Amino acid sequence: MALINEHFLKLQKNYLFADIAKKVNAYKAMHPKANVISLGIGDVTQPLCPAVIDAMHKAVDDMAHKETFHGYGPEQGYIWLREAIVKNDFLPRGVHLDPDEIFVNDGAKSDTGNIGELVRWDNSMAVTDPIYPVYIDSNVMIGRAGVFADGKWSNVTYMPCTDKNKFVPQIPDHRVDMIYLCYPNNPTGMVLPKEELRKWVNYAIHNDSIIFYDAAYEAYIQDPDIPHSIYEIRGARKVAIEFHSYSKTAGFTGVRCGYTVVPKELTATTVDGQRLPLNQYWLRRQSTKFNGTSYISQRGAEAIYTPEGKKQVAETIQYYMKNASIMREALTDLGFEVYGGTDAPYLWVKTPGDTPSWQFFEQLLYGAQVVCTPGVGFGPSGEGFVRLTSFGDRDDCIEAMARIKEWLKK
Amino acid sequence: MALINEHFLKLQKNYLFADIAKKVNAYKAMHPKANVISLGIGDVTQPLCPAVIDAMHKAVDDMAHKETFHGYGPEQGYIWLREAIVKNDFLPRGVHLDPDEIFVNDGAKSDTGNIGELVRWDNSMAVTDPIYPVYIDSNVMIGRAGVFADGKWSNVTYMPCTDKNKFVPQIPDHRVDMIYLCYPNNPTGMVLPKEELRKWVNYAIHNDSIIFYDAAYEAYIQDPDIPHSIYEIRGARKVAIEFHSYSKTAGFTGVRCGYTVVPKELTATTVDGQRLPLNQYWLRRQSTKFNGTSYISQRGAEAIYTPEGKKQVAETIQYYMKNASIMREALTDLGFEVYGGTDAPYLWVKTPGDTPSWQFFEQLLYGAQVVCTPGVGFGPSGEGFVRLTSFGDRDDCIEAMARIKEWLKK
Repeated sequence: MALINEHFLKLQKNYLFADIAKKVNAYKAMHPKANVISLGIGDVTQPLCPAVIDAMHKAVDDMAHKETFHGYGPEQGYIWLREAIVKNDFLPRGVHLDPDEIFVNDGAKSDTGNIGELVRWDNSMAVTDPIYPVYIDSNVMIGRAGVFADGKWSNVTYMPCTDKNKFVPQIPDHRVDMIYLCYPNNPTGMVLPKEELRKWVNYAIHNDSIIFYDAAYEAYIQDPDIPHSIYEIRGARKVAIEFHSYSKTAGFTGVRCGYTVVPKELTATTVDGQRLPLNQYWLRRQSTKFNGTSYISQRGAEAIYTPEGKKQVAETIQYYMKNASIMREALTDLGFEVYGGTDAPYLWVKTPGDTPSWQFFEQLLYGAQVVCTPGVGFGPSGEGFVRLTSFGDRDDCIEAMARIKEWLKK
Repeated sequence: MALINEHFLKLQKNYLFADIAKKVNAYKAMHPKANVISLGIGDVTQPLCPAVIDAMHKAVDDMAHKETFHGYGPEQGYIWLREAIVKNDFLPRGVHLDPDEIFVNDGAKSDTGNIGELVRWDNSMAVTDPIYPVYIDSNVMIGRAGVFADGKWSNVTYMPCTDKNKFVPQIPDHRVDMIYLCYPNNPTGMVLPKEELRKWVNYAIHNDSIIFYDAAYEAYIQDPDIPHSIYEIRGARKVAIEFHSYSKTAGFTGVRCGYTVVPKELTATTVDGQRLPLNQYWLRRQSTKFNGTSYISQRGAEAIYTPEGKKQVAETIQYYMKNASIMREALTDLGFEVYGGTDAPYLWVKTPGDTPSWQFFEQLLYGAQVVCTPGVGFGPSGEGFVRLTSFGDRDDCIEAMARIKEWLKK
């Protein structure tokens, strides 16, 4: 008989955001007139910018005529998009990449989830804690995470990031093969200065580890000294795979386009010690199990790099960052301990009096009709925190802060 | 040190279509004035139909305004598309599906490649031979196919489909856990009548196997007695996962949208004999490692099911099928043994005098500047055949046949 992949059975029953949706829907069913404001899930709300809209209309028109029709594109993405990426996202920061090191995808979630296929199932792994659940769950499915006990996976090294250590993860005292880092961080909204990131690159070089670096939120960095790419650190090309996404950069959550960088110098090792470049194996994986991203989405992404596109995308980011600063200020005034929100679209808020995350989530929902994301959903070190996102409408943001203020008065 | 997934090293060096592209490009470099006609790769050439174009323009406009903007969609696909699928692709054939059994994706290649994650890596598998390479390669990557020796993978049961058995695969004399079937078949262009398909469903029920049924070409079936879906066979809901694609149905190779059916009755077993429904695990997999398909692509797919969409899509399919019949007739007149091409966009042509596939590929390229796909690229039983596709322009089709005629005279 066909046997199920037993690792799937180890997964915790529900995905965090599905749990939240269920609780919010239950509340709405009981309070049909309530106007619930969601600062929970990290989805954007502002429309795509005109440059992207124009480019996608043009791309749709291309598909209407035999002469300009596009069938299968390269699995790795169109060269015009990969060249625009190299030229605009990396060159200005002194990072030289070859377009063949760029793999256009349908969003960072797919690639951060699938990349683990490249390495042996029993490689050891480390994650910052709290963390985006996909990094762990995708490794659970492959058997790499071990078993779940006492709120942790047995084969995963957790690197706590809390107010105690100013959210700076400590380098493990043992070696691990795979390290997941996400900066600007989801969920804490914190960033890593160059000198801290350099420690990780050096650790990876020293220990022959691979860093999976999720830079999905890099466009939100305001501080000029904070690195946007791990490749700004010398030596990183040998040890790091980097994930980018247009979801948050340009509101592409419904358009589906992003990219992954697999440098040609990056290697993993065979059991008998041979070093092999992962770039070619990722290409083989993508050529076999992926057929490229929508031509229309790629044309939309290309438009982000035009002068108008850059300007328009930056405006939307500033809109969201203004939300972040409004929320930061309001919550700080109300006496909350607030982290993040200056170089990231996320605010990481300590619950008053160490209220458990899910309890505070419900208090906020029932008391102020505001949805947050319980921090513990991102890992054990997220307990006692909630995540708020700045992706909402300005009016909703302001209204949510007013409601929280009112609620606290009661 | 990080160890590479050793199964990737077992993969044969190149993907079939990459090999072909390389040889064709080499020829073009040497003969820059040659007008090469490709009847090789199965990519469409006709533009998207007006109903789809209109729907996608409207969808792009939706993304331009806050009120109609769409961010993250459901990982499983929008309900309006899943309902249209259930109502149009299945109900008219007497197949009742629940929209929750439909998983919209970015094309059948992704899902046929990823679906193997659901079952244990050491499940046994069978494939018809010749076969679409993705079914095997994706299983090689997971370790399931074993090692490659003498042109075959050690843990794969091959079911030869040749002119000797009229391309009807024989049921294995032993049990296997996973069976890949593709009808109308890629590459042979042959179809399976109901009574043959019933044998497979019964085998799977009897042996507790899972059938992975690729129906990507079902829209090309002309014979009213040939099943379009395996679910037309009683009992199939318990044993079959079915893959559909808009790539060939509606020219979506560059748009990226298709869907997978995982019926709720379908189960796999734990080591201790518990039966578990795969539908929920596939949902969990998709929710973790996929973020849904482009909203614009899904709106385009929805338009295929409107009265105009249906009519326009059918016209393009008839255009391609007319190509197939022109090629079939011309090649038969020239003395070739030709299979397929009546209920499928593919023609499977026996090489004259048992010429090896790759040799005939080169003869045809150099002699007539026509590109075919060498049959052996699809598996050992494909040796001595080539695949031609009917997805070209009418004029190219006619010209290719004329050139082959001229070339044979020489």
